[in-house]
Amino acid sequence: MDSFTVVENIYLLVIVTLISVLQNAFFAQKVERECNCQNTKTQTSAFERVSCANRNCMDAYPTFLAVMWCAGLCLSQAPAAFAGFIYLVVRQKYFVGYMGQTSQSTPGYLFGKRVIFFLLLMCIVGISNFLLMRHYGSDYKEYVETITNAASALLLIP
Amino acid sequence: MDSFTVVENIYLLVIVTLISVLQNAFFAQKVERECNCQNTKTQTSAFERVSCANRNCMDAYPTFLAVMWCAGLCLSQAPAAFAGFIYLVVRQKYFVGYMGQTSQSTPGYLFGKRVIFFLLLMCIVGISNFLLMRHYGSDYKEYVETITNAASALLLIP
Amino acid sequence: MDSFTVVENIYLLVIVTLISVLQNAFFAQKVERECNCQNTKTQTSAFERVSCANRNCMDAYPTFLAVMWCAGLCLSQAPAAFAGFIYLVVRQKYFVGYMGQTSQSTPGYLFGKRVIFFLLLMCIVGISNFLLMRHYGSDYKEYVETITNAASALLLIP
Repeated sequence: MDSFTVVENIYLLVIVTLISVLQNAFFAQKVERECNCQNTKTQTSAFERVSCANRNCMDAYPTFLAVMWCAGLCLSQAPAAFAGFIYLVVRQKYFVGYMGQTSQSTPGYLFGKRVIFFLLLMCIVGISNFLLMRHYGSDYKEYVETITNAASALLLIP
Repeated sequence: MDSFTVVENIYLLVIVTLISVLQNAFFAQKVERECNCQNTKTQTSAFERVSCANRNCMDAYPTFLAVMWCAGLCLSQAPAAFAGFIYLVVRQKYFVGYMGQTSQSTPGYLFGKRVIFFLLLMCIVGISNFLLMRHYGSDYKEYVETITNAASALLLIP
Repeated sequence: MDSFTVVENIYLLVIVTLISVLQNAFFAQKVERECNCQNTKTQTSAFERVSCANRNCMDAYPTFLAVMWCAGLCLSQAPAAFAGFIYLVVRQKYFVGYMGQTSQSTPGYLFGKRVIFFLLLMCIVGISNFLLMRHYGSDYKEYVETITNAASALLLIP
């Protein structure tokens, strides 16, 4: 029953993590295919582009995971998992855009800043709510969760 | 006593994580030694090979950690920690193989796909078992854990 | 109330994680600025240096997070979070030192080895204390926590 409660509080986060792992596997497969192509046909530019996109995604991956899990544990899991899912969609778009022709508008080094910022804000609100509750006994968690649920919908605006 | 229960459920995962950290430190030391050699003797090829092997290992590291911990938390820790240990052995082999001569069969970009796939499957089974238990009240966790324990032995087949 | 207890045990770790995420964002912004500069003025050396510093920091980031959280969960969070904070200060120094002129003493590939080693030791002590408690019923956690708190102050020595 104890293990049931633990899974109850994190299962949405686990699902988003699983989707992100599948996406990582998809990225890695793309890199491996280009890597094999390179050995035979020396298309360096395509390989370099895919490899660079993969590296930028991988650089940001631990940061994303850490922020999402902290936000989910400290405040509430539903908006955190939703924001994580939005981040994965943004990352997919970024990767596909990077693989395209260079004549297109090339994406920069960073992406998904808004989602990371939202998750960071969730963490800060969750921690300060905990500290308030501990020192003053006032609990605003109900209100904060409702506001966060509503605010997470704003991430859908492009 | 509460902290005792928490550690009870994760101590095998923590041990595997510690071993992986020691392995990371070993890899990093190899890179640093080659980096210092490069400054004096300009053996670029050896440095590049070690650096590339290290980078591929590090790219896959957060994914591995996330999947192992999710599988351990959602289903049961013993097979997850065992699979994680197998992954570390595969990674060690990959790194050593990468550092060898280029005349050898060079390892690709990916490694340990089977272990990651097994851990991913464990997560999915754990999550779907939780959802079944929540919505229908049927608990197959006992059976699933027994099957998983048996299945994890299959990873030993090379 | 259950969620309150969870946050109680991890809130210092979450705060350090948040600071590290802010620092990552700072590093990424530096890289992006140099990346944009490079397109117009072709200052490859500055871009390469910042990019290399960022990559070394990012390579070590998952390892650091894993060790800090394990140490915090297995033993006690206050010294783990303190050591994590020290690590972030060391990393900031490393990054700034890397961006400086090459005539300066260039920092190597590794940094913060002492802090990582301290956190690793905390994990090992925590795990062995747990195993002792489980098999022999003797609990030295009180003594160990006091010693760890005192020992963490030693990290301040440069």
